[in-house]
Amino acid sequence: MSADAARLSRDIDAIAGFSETPAVLGYSRPTFSPSWRRARNYVQEAAEAAGCRVRVDAAGNLHARPQGLSWDARAWLCGSHVDSVPTGGKYDGVTGVVAALELLRGYPSAPVELIVFAEEEGTTFGLGMLGSRAWAGTLSAGELAALRNTAGQSYLEAGAPHGVDPGRLEQERFSAASYHGLVEVHVEQGASLWKRGEPLAVVTAINGRRQYSCTLEGTANHAGSTTMDDRRDALAGAAECIRYLEALARDLRVGDSDNTVITVGRLVVDPNAINVIPGRAFFTIDFRSASPAVLDRGEERLRNRLARFAASRGLAITLERTESVPVVPLDAGVCGRLREAGRRIDVSLPDVTSGALHDTAILAPLVPAAMLFVASKDGISHNPAELSRVEHIALAVRVLEEALAA
Amino acid sequence: MSADAARLSRDIDAIAGFSETPAVLGYSRPTFSPSWRRARNYVQEAAEAAGCRVRVDAAGNLHARPQGLSWDARAWLCGSHVDSVPTGGKYDGVTGVVAALELLRGYPSAPVELIVFAEEEGTTFGLGMLGSRAWAGTLSAGELAALRNTAGQSYLEAGAPHGVDPGRLEQERFSAASYHGLVEVHVEQGASLWKRGEPLAVVTAINGRRQYSCTLEGTANHAGSTTMDDRRDALAGAAECIRYLEALARDLRVGDSDNTVITVGRLVVDPNAINVIPGRAFFTIDFRSASPAVLDRGEERLRNRLARFAASRGLAITLERTESVPVVPLDAGVCGRLREAGRRIDVSLPDVTSGALHDTAILAPLVPAAMLFVASKDGISHNPAELSRVEHIALAVRVLEEALAA
Repeated sequence: MSADAARLSRDIDAIAGFSETPAVLGYSRPTFSPSWRRARNYVQEAAEAAGCRVRVDAAGNLHARPQGLSWDARAWLCGSHVDSVPTGGKYDGVTGVVAALELLRGYPSAPVELIVFAEEEGTTFGLGMLGSRAWAGTLSAGELAALRNTAGQSYLEAGAPHGVDPGRLEQERFSAASYHGLVEVHVEQGASLWKRGEPLAVVTAINGRRQYSCTLEGTANHAGSTTMDDRRDALAGAAECIRYLEALARDLRVGDSDNTVITVGRLVVDPNAINVIPGRAFFTIDFRSASPAVLDRGEERLRNRLARFAASRGLAITLERTESVPVVPLDAGVCGRLREAGRRIDVSLPDVTSGALHDTAILAPLVPAAMLFVASKDGISHNPAELSRVEHIALAVRVLEEALAA
Repeated sequence: MSADAARLSRDIDAIAGFSETPAVLGYSRPTFSPSWRRARNYVQEAAEAAGCRVRVDAAGNLHARPQGLSWDARAWLCGSHVDSVPTGGKYDGVTGVVAALELLRGYPSAPVELIVFAEEEGTTFGLGMLGSRAWAGTLSAGELAALRNTAGQSYLEAGAPHGVDPGRLEQERFSAASYHGLVEVHVEQGASLWKRGEPLAVVTAINGRRQYSCTLEGTANHAGSTTMDDRRDALAGAAECIRYLEALARDLRVGDSDNTVITVGRLVVDPNAINVIPGRAFFTIDFRSASPAVLDRGEERLRNRLARFAASRGLAITLERTESVPVVPLDAGVCGRLREAGRRIDVSLPDVTSGALHDTAILAPLVPAAMLFVASKDGISHNPAELSRVEHIALAVRVLEEALAA
């Protein structure tokens, strides 16, 4: 047993030191930025110091294997990402990378390959998990060339100095023959484990996500002279929808550990003036569940109810589904290995589903995959206040070591 | 009886022809713009053609009296404004001006002075009723110099070519000795008369208005991984407040003709992203009633309830009153004259209160004042679809003539 909390802590702090913004504002490592590259270099050098060989694939993902383990041999893939949202936290992504690094330092009995996925967050090129998508082949070189950052550079252009090479994408594609499976350690980014005092959990599925845009059209009118009965107030209608959607998410839950959620994150009002009744309200809906049936039932209910609210207020409604990501069930065998390992070393490992998307969701259809969640203090994430206990991360490394050796 | 609907119609169309925007978009006459000046010139020339003398006071208001009526003699003040909101309608303000013009054309037996107030809408310099405020003396030359339009010009600078003269403001101030009273004809801008099939109404009070700003602060968090129970969603809290305020306005109403209203017109969400739980929501509240007691009671209730909603969701709340305009009761004597006139010529004149502010609200504390409302089709105003029937405006002129002659 090798996991060393102090060493994990030093790795996390070292990577946090690479940021495009001062630490007081949060940690910012947009993919292909100087800070991102320094963080990746840090991982590369640490892996080499632990006796590994390192390569970067044509999608920009970093791989490290112990010297004695050839690139073609079957291995367990462990890792995550070092890119961050703007002014994010120290633990998102980095946790899974340093856990894999620590695993390699302990010379595990199982064959392990560390991976740092390029561009997970989606804030740099407008779409997430680009490194894993490009490696898995679900995104072509042409599609990567069309995604641009705020500087106007495509993923291929911005990534070229960091190893991205569209000419080699095809031949370096992910090959299931080289892997036993994938286990990604990641912070939960929700409060459920922290509240229950559980350090870790096994992730059995990654929630499906459906997103919608909804526009309500009423009549902009004088806020003083239009009686309550004569209004077609688009914002009042939106407020009714938002209250309903919040209640619907609670209503659709089937158990305590169910993280079915509905969020209205974006709302734009027109004309948005203190003395004018809102004539139009646009809002988004983000609906996630681990159950495809819940997603179907929820969509039907929200479509019916929102249409009814609009009709009762004389508002025109346009409701469009803008995205549908299916539920990704994780591999029962790998989840079972993790649970077994927990039992053997006396670590409680409840089952949860992941509300957030991760690179694992991209690779799960191709390889037996699972995730280990580490408790997030108060569930805060994408925020400099993000915190996970390094002792919990060390425990995750122990579980990994035990599970993969079995 | 002199009111001529065809002539009123020609006046309205002529003034509508003076617009900074094409008619298809609506009618735009910002105060002191070329179109505004052409509209004022039109009124001036029409008044002169009807045998009047015309002058512009130091605040920029146009006055016209019949040749035989000296400027010092007591007269009835009748008029309104010709400035408009951007892409507004043909009838707002213009109705009261053309009604006064038509009254003068009929050589009324009563002494009548037409007035065109400068800058009523408030969209040009950020504060409404500047012409009447400056004339009444409730706004000083210093304050007028501080109000600027989008071109950066102050009211005094932009108004100088149109007669505004800070040096004469003091001596040309409104003098109660010169007036019997004021009657402003204006479109209702609400739907109550149109729905009841009433062409006109007597306005007995101008509603008081209180405005508030409210900020709810929660925690911006991951929309996927934060369970419904772990959220401090500022927008969901705002939605609860908006629904409550809508219900409160209905609850505070004391009768069918009561136009107590509450509007949330402006809402800004932060960070306003589809996949982030809103951490902050800012919204405005515009609360109007003809009853000071209702305003007091409503404010107490909304303060208590919004604080309770915030507390129950773990949100911090900041609620500030940003404006308080008292209820302006109109003169019982002048209202009685109008009602009497209606009875004599068999015109139904129900009582209403005005939800919108008007120049009459500024002068009512200084002179016996009342208003006559003309029905607005479907209550639509500040919109090119604004419509009032010219026959109804002609009826208002008849009531005015009858009332002032009495």
